[in-house]
Amino acid sequence: MNLVLLFESDFTDSGHVLLSGRRFLHIRDVHRARVGDSVRVGRLNGKMGVGVIESISENQLRLQVQLDLEPPSPLPVSLVMALPRPKMLRRCLTMVAELGVKELYLINSVRVEKSFWQSPWLADEQIREYLLLGLEQSLDTLLPRVHIRKRFKPFVEDELPGLLENRLGLLAHPGTTTLEEAGIGTPITGSTLLCIGPEGGFIPYEVDKLVDAGCRSVDLGERIYRVETALPLLVGRLFV
Amino acid sequence: MNLVLLFESDFTDSGHVLLSGRRFLHIRDVHRARVGDSVRVGRLNGKMGVGVIESISENQLRLQVQLDLEPPSPLPVSLVMALPRPKMLRRCLTMVAELGVKELYLINSVRVEKSFWQSPWLADEQIREYLLLGLEQSLDTLLPRVHIRKRFKPFVEDELPGLLENRLGLLAHPGTTTLEEAGIGTPITGSTLLCIGPEGGFIPYEVDKLVDAGCRSVDLGERIYRVETALPLLVGRLFV
Repeated sequence: MNLVLLFESDFTDSGHVLLSGRRFLHIRDVHRARVGDSVRVGRLNGKMGVGVIESISENQLRLQVQLDLEPPSPLPVSLVMALPRPKMLRRCLTMVAELGVKELYLINSVRVEKSFWQSPWLADEQIREYLLLGLEQSLDTLLPRVHIRKRFKPFVEDELPGLLENRLGLLAHPGTTTLEEAGIGTPITGSTLLCIGPEGGFIPYEVDKLVDAGCRSVDLGERIYRVETALPLLVGRLFV
Repeated sequence: MNLVLLFESDFTDSGHVLLSGRRFLHIRDVHRARVGDSVRVGRLNGKMGVGVIESISENQLRLQVQLDLEPPSPLPVSLVMALPRPKMLRRCLTMVAELGVKELYLINSVRVEKSFWQSPWLADEQIREYLLLGLEQSLDTLLPRVHIRKRFKPFVEDELPGLLENRLGLLAHPGTTTLEEAGIGTPITGSTLLCIGPEGGFIPYEVDKLVDAGCRSVDLGERIYRVETALPLLVGRLFV
């Protein structure tokens, strides 16, 4: 927890918050902070700054906060990702937030097992929890929006073309064009939509549909990466 | 397991292997392969190719193998990494192998907890197991070498300068020079040594010692990443 995230309900007035639970315990037991010490804080979807501990009781603490710093710039990318298996989904959600992606579409693919869609980790509250961990890690306050699209065809036919208007669409897929061949310079600063397939990749029909909708298929070498490796590697290659 | 790794002891002659245990079970139960089916195979530290199933018994299977493909090119980087916490170490080892890093130095830092050095995961056999998982994932056969250096000062003073001869040395550290400012073009193709700090970063004394030894400190933006996010992000940014 490099940043203590603050929610509206924490504020007792515009300059003070009262924290209990996980954040209280972390500040007390991990930071080992005392009255007068300061911690980095940020208001969810708002500014960041410093909180000075005014008092600590047995189960809560009071911070005087000053919020005058902008959060880091979002990455210029919307991510479209085949739903990963539940264990990997949690790590991917945290990573998405940590990397600065602000828009995530979780979509279906033939290679997404049906049971993955039943995962309790897809509940709004669970998704939010793993996203918050990523923001706390990377010193950011802007919560990503996650869109769940259980049906592939309506998504690529009816929604994706609109998302690709005035945007570069990329599909990371082995055995296709390199970025150089595609004439795409990096780091990319313009608005982009990036698709990442499931383990084993999108099937040819799905690749065709994504390309028909306007995505360009690009290749990042001979290796096959796990999704949680591919994601930060792609962000580093394309946007940082 | 995208690639079935073969060891010397598996070979009954130059063109046949007998597999039991985890690889046998994976081919039978996950690939659901039958006699006549083929699987991708690779000889550890050797060539890759195809294995055709000749027979399957209750607890082993026999493959006829043809090995004529080179493994993918290694990344041109030696990685120097502050020892991560045990749980993260395992994931980092797999990731190192998956990314194509072939030389890893695990070093000490003030911010590495002493207990991490006692981890059973640092045993040669454990390290090897997690590296093999990465090779199986990314279709590679070249096992990374892992060097354990429990003392920071002897490593940076006595060993690091030699490792940096005729090599670009980089230290990923926030708040310093960008790659552009340092005049470093990417992707880097020449031999490179890359240092990654612990959670919380190297302390200023350690940064100074690494820079004195010949590393250039570079900054990759305002965010603070977990090591397992930073590593593929850096590889994508610098080498892919």
